[in-house]
Amino acid sequence: MAAMDASAIEQGEEERLMVRKDVFRPWPKTRRTVKACLLAIKGFLFRVGDDWYFLFALGVIMALISFTMDFTVSKMLNAHRWLQQELGGHTLLRYLSWIVYPIALVAFSTGFAQSITPHSGGSGIPELKTILTGVILEEYLTIKNFGAKVVGLTCTLSAGSTMFLGKVGPFVHLSSMIAAYLGRMRSSVTGNYENKSKEHEMLVAAAAVGVSTVFGAPISGVLFSVEVMSSHFAVRNYWRGFFAATCGAFMFRLLAVFNSEQETISAIFKTNFKITFPFDLPETFFYMILGVICGTVSCAYLFCQRWLLGYVRRNPFTASLLASDKPLYSALVAILVSSITFPDFLGQFLASRLTMKELLVSLFDNRTWWTLSQNASAEWPTGVDPNNLWMEWANPKITIFGTLAFFIVMKFWMFTLATTLPMPAGYFMPVFIYGAAIGRLVGETVAYIFPEGITSDGVVNPILPGGYALAGAAAYSGAVTHSLSTALLAFEATGQIAHILPVILSVLVANAIAQKFQPSFYDGTIIVKKLPYLPRIRSRQINSYKVNTGEFMKTDVEVLAKDAGFEDVLQVVTSSDYSEYPVVDNTESQVLAGTVKRSQLIRFLETHESQREPRIPDQKVPCGSTLGEGCTIDPVTFQLSSWTSLHEAHHLFELLSLQHAFVTEFGKVVGCVTRKEMRKAIEDLANPK
Amino acid sequence: MAAMDASAIEQGEEERLMVRKDVFRPWPKTRRTVKACLLAIKGFLFRVGDDWYFLFALGVIMALISFTMDFTVSKMLNAHRWLQQELGGHTLLRYLSWIVYPIALVAFSTGFAQSITPHSGGSGIPELKTILTGVILEEYLTIKNFGAKVVGLTCTLSAGSTMFLGKVGPFVHLSSMIAAYLGRMRSSVTGNYENKSKEHEMLVAAAAVGVSTVFGAPISGVLFSVEVMSSHFAVRNYWRGFFAATCGAFMFRLLAVFNSEQETISAIFKTNFKITFPFDLPETFFYMILGVICGTVSCAYLFCQRWLLGYVRRNPFTASLLASDKPLYSALVAILVSSITFPDFLGQFLASRLTMKELLVSLFDNRTWWTLSQNASAEWPTGVDPNNLWMEWANPKITIFGTLAFFIVMKFWMFTLATTLPMPAGYFMPVFIYGAAIGRLVGETVAYIFPEGITSDGVVNPILPGGYALAGAAAYSGAVTHSLSTALLAFEATGQIAHILPVILSVLVANAIAQKFQPSFYDGTIIVKKLPYLPRIRSRQINSYKVNTGEFMKTDVEVLAKDAGFEDVLQVVTSSDYSEYPVVDNTESQVLAGTVKRSQLIRFLETHESQREPRIPDQKVPCGSTLGEGCTIDPVTFQLSSWTSLHEAHHLFELLSLQHAFVTEFGKVVGCVTRKEMRKAIEDLANPK
Repeated sequence: MAAMDASAIEQGEEERLMVRKDVFRPWPKTRRTVKACLLAIKGFLFRVGDDWYFLFALGVIMALISFTMDFTVSKMLNAHRWLQQELGGHTLLRYLSWIVYPIALVAFSTGFAQSITPHSGGSGIPELKTILTGVILEEYLTIKNFGAKVVGLTCTLSAGSTMFLGKVGPFVHLSSMIAAYLGRMRSSVTGNYENKSKEHEMLVAAAAVGVSTVFGAPISGVLFSVEVMSSHFAVRNYWRGFFAATCGAFMFRLLAVFNSEQETISAIFKTNFKITFPFDLPETFFYMILGVICGTVSCAYLFCQRWLLGYVRRNPFTASLLASDKPLYSALVAILVSSITFPDFLGQFLASRLTMKELLVSLFDNRTWWTLSQNASAEWPTGVDPNNLWMEWANPKITIFGTLAFFIVMKFWMFTLATTLPMPAGYFMPVFIYGAAIGRLVGETVAYIFPEGITSDGVVNPILPGGYALAGAAAYSGAVTHSLSTALLAFEATGQIAHILPVILSVLVANAIAQKFQPSFYDGTIIVKKLPYLPRIRSRQINSYKVNTGEFMKTDVEVLAKDAGFEDVLQVVTSSDYSEYPVVDNTESQVLAGTVKRSQLIRFLETHESQREPRIPDQKVPCGSTLGEGCTIDPVTFQLSSWTSLHEAHHLFELLSLQHAFVTEFGKVVGCVTRKEMRKAIEDLANPK
Repeated sequence: MAAMDASAIEQGEEERLMVRKDVFRPWPKTRRTVKACLLAIKGFLFRVGDDWYFLFALGVIMALISFTMDFTVSKMLNAHRWLQQELGGHTLLRYLSWIVYPIALVAFSTGFAQSITPHSGGSGIPELKTILTGVILEEYLTIKNFGAKVVGLTCTLSAGSTMFLGKVGPFVHLSSMIAAYLGRMRSSVTGNYENKSKEHEMLVAAAAVGVSTVFGAPISGVLFSVEVMSSHFAVRNYWRGFFAATCGAFMFRLLAVFNSEQETISAIFKTNFKITFPFDLPETFFYMILGVICGTVSCAYLFCQRWLLGYVRRNPFTASLLASDKPLYSALVAILVSSITFPDFLGQFLASRLTMKELLVSLFDNRTWWTLSQNASAEWPTGVDPNNLWMEWANPKITIFGTLAFFIVMKFWMFTLATTLPMPAGYFMPVFIYGAAIGRLVGETVAYIFPEGITSDGVVNPILPGGYALAGAAAYSGAVTHSLSTALLAFEATGQIAHILPVILSVLVANAIAQKFQPSFYDGTIIVKKLPYLPRIRSRQINSYKVNTGEFMKTDVEVLAKDAGFEDVLQVVTSSDYSEYPVVDNTESQVLAGTVKRSQLIRFLETHESQREPRIPDQKVPCGSTLGEGCTIDPVTFQLSSWTSLHEAHHLFELLSLQHAFVTEFGKVVGCVTRKEMRKAIEDLANPK
């Protein structure tokens, strides 16, 4: 009744408004036509299911953000470089300007992001991965995060290669925030069809867009996001992702052309390898050795990173800093790191005057550094020469081998330390560069040992250390993230694919080692951050076929009968706090008839209570007095049986993104399995009692 | 008892054998040690779950087959070319030798393959796609098919570009046969764990190997097989596929090096495009137009192909030929096609002297044919010049534009006709070449219109028609197969990735058009061959959210009570022939308790009958006399409810590869949904009554 009244009032209001409008606005017919047209356009654009517009918008928006951020960051870095050059001989002043810049930026980034929302720190991929398994982390995708992350990330990146951080992770996060926002906008327009599955689809596409707008690499953007984010994916989502990622990458590279950075659309880290004879057959052996090295180093790194991430949370000093003075913690780390990278000090052996992009471009150089450095003058250049970036590495004191090795050793712990900073930052790009450095070192060594190439039958085909750098980048980043598509990423980002087979071999070898001994970077973070997490069952754990659900399920399940009354429901609701309860036919048979949501039960209790108090004796009870009548009982589409094997149950949990499932025996409820039980059972498999 | 006796006898037999062996073989200790070692190695190699060895073996075997086949085919084709040249001026003799060769080969291919098994015809991808949705087509993967397909395919390919057929599809089929065979071999050694899911995993990997060993393209092999084969995909299978495909591709290219075809491992259709300035920005517009053209042509082709495939089955003449004289049908088609392609006749306008590989290489030429043909002599060369393959296209009578257009027109119907031949043959490669020809025509036209390149500010950057050919190949093959990974395939096969963004744009545009108007080539074949098939729900069919399972389910379900006796079971088994029946608690409540397989019921009936006859009155019945005791009742893990929407039900059918599902209401069985009902409901969506 109240609702009807309200609508009547609204209608009246509307009529009054209509009259008023008519007074002010002439040509009612024209306006009506225009309105109909606009409605038709809206109907066309916002048709449920046609989300190509949204995917397009998502790609373009992210490309604009990515380009703008790159542009700002490069201006900031140029300013810093200019300042360094202007200060000339004043070492102290140069030192101060060198360290103040990153300190201020990092502290501001941490403070700003954390003051708006604590969820804006880190990369965001682990959390997004958790969301995609069906866990709801609502506040993670709010648009509030967006500003914090954009501003924070810009500052982080402006701190340059000193801090050695990237932008892939945050871009995936930003992209999914925009996708969630666009999705909410649309569902407010079109109504609430298929919200959950659509949201999932959009998030998957968003992850692809995030990667592709950073590297301008559509295909590997999709693949990387699939590998990192999910255990299963639908081909239809892949198409969506592909479309959005292509729009994003195209726009991103187009902007670079419009900004006259490039003559035409081309790869972001364009290389210039010789394609007629990129590598010789026996070199595949060295590529595989490179894979072994990358795999081993990645295991060490993953272990140290996880340990340090836990340590700074355990250690009283750092823990208290991180709890109350996050910016101070960031500043302290920045002081340490930037002091080390000061070019007059150790920085000269770390190529620290190069930006992140220059580091990568220099490592992918198609020339052999060793040969170049033999012919070069023995003087250390005063400024960075954009055409000879390799000279930054060719420190005459310790040769290129020394700088590369020193870089690898120092950046190992410096980057591990940087990942503990609570500010928006990506960790993929540094890993990629680090891998390229390993590859370059191996490649230069091979080129040094075989200066004439390996098969010397007349034609000289010298070894290309750049190819090794490419393979190293792909293999190391692939091992750290447990993904294979980094190989493709390396090709798309450099615009050359001639090294495909050796690079893939390195990536496979490195991945085999890393996956055997360590969880991936993102899984490691999920473990340390204690996010809900379903471990993988390794295919060699054949006991997973032997353990049955009956052995690890929770047996004390609160069951509600269909004819349960107020008291029963009250008792169940107060004694437990599950989100869903099984409803059985009757308490005797215990046959599962459906499920009921906690919210439904609470509403049932509320209506019941309110009815109780002012009840007029003769009036019939309008709402149902038993559960079956008063609540919506959801049908059960999915249930486990006591004899379902752990392996199968795990597979179904992953496939259907289940959070819990009831266990039945011939239709009777006998237990319940949640992700907690599942996880425990899997852990017991690995460490049998 | 009988079994025990048999085992006792076997044991005795074994002991006797042992004694005999001991007599002949000395050093029992050494032998025991060796045996233990071998067992340990077997245990290590055949450990369940570690299927890397198998994947490796699969890749290597397929690479060997692919290489051997290519080698044989190239020898055969060379012989044919030599014959043609030797015959010199005798036009009639040349004509005869030109047509007899393909006729004989095609007729033999058809006859041989069909005489061994009728399943060896065609590409095999549609059938494999059906198998991967969970339908059992057992005989399709038997090793008997293998020989038929290998020999048949070799003959088909040896017929050369006259028949215009490829090898991708059959290789996918061959690869899955080997995978199934290896799987059976393994499960006979290790026992029967996880057979079904493992088989599925191996088949998915096999599809990837099939594609990758044809093109030497591991990444796109995996992606293409994913897109074409399945609607959902597990990342873990993707890794397996990746590994196997890499092994296959590496081995395949390695063999080419060992055979001195190439100096080092490189792409199979290596191109040599200029990478410093591959295309100019405004050219993306022409690339998109190319996408539109490819999409439109692909729709026409798909329609005609499906129509013709149906027509030859309906037309009395061709139908009777196909039923009884398949080789004759093939031979007739071969006469027609090869007469047209005779180089002295119309073949000179069709570049018919080139092999399939040469056709593709010539189309991907980095030079502009128009410019070349301007400077070339006006004479038609007598033989094929391997370094100037383009000359085959530059017929002075109708210029290159004429030959390309003629090629496109003629090959349209000739290839459509060739797809109706009942012999082992792939259809991807011809589609790829056809697309390249379309692209080349567009590219040459653009280059003709803008001879100086599009932006003429000083530096001349001429247009590369080869890039258009690449985009055309990717876009047309992508549109025909409804996949996007053909873009990547084009890059991997040519070894250059500089055109990535425009190519992907063309592919996206072409796919959008083709997916909107026509089912894919493989889906079309599935429809025509009437294989079990679950149509896709388009995302704009929002009614799929409104239609509930209750509206389209089958309601007359045969139900068995747990306490059903012989008579009930007999009645149910004789009156219907489903593979599985729902078991309810009791006939009154109708609560679903589990399912029972038909085979179980039949065994139940058999044991019952055999007990009846020679029963000794006092003896207790050893087997259960009711269904609940005598049969294994499988638990139900999955059920639909009447209120599940069609969209959700479809999603679950696809995700879980279900063949049927029971429908319940509060636990009670009310109906059943099979793929048939599902398909009908989806078709009703598209054509509402």
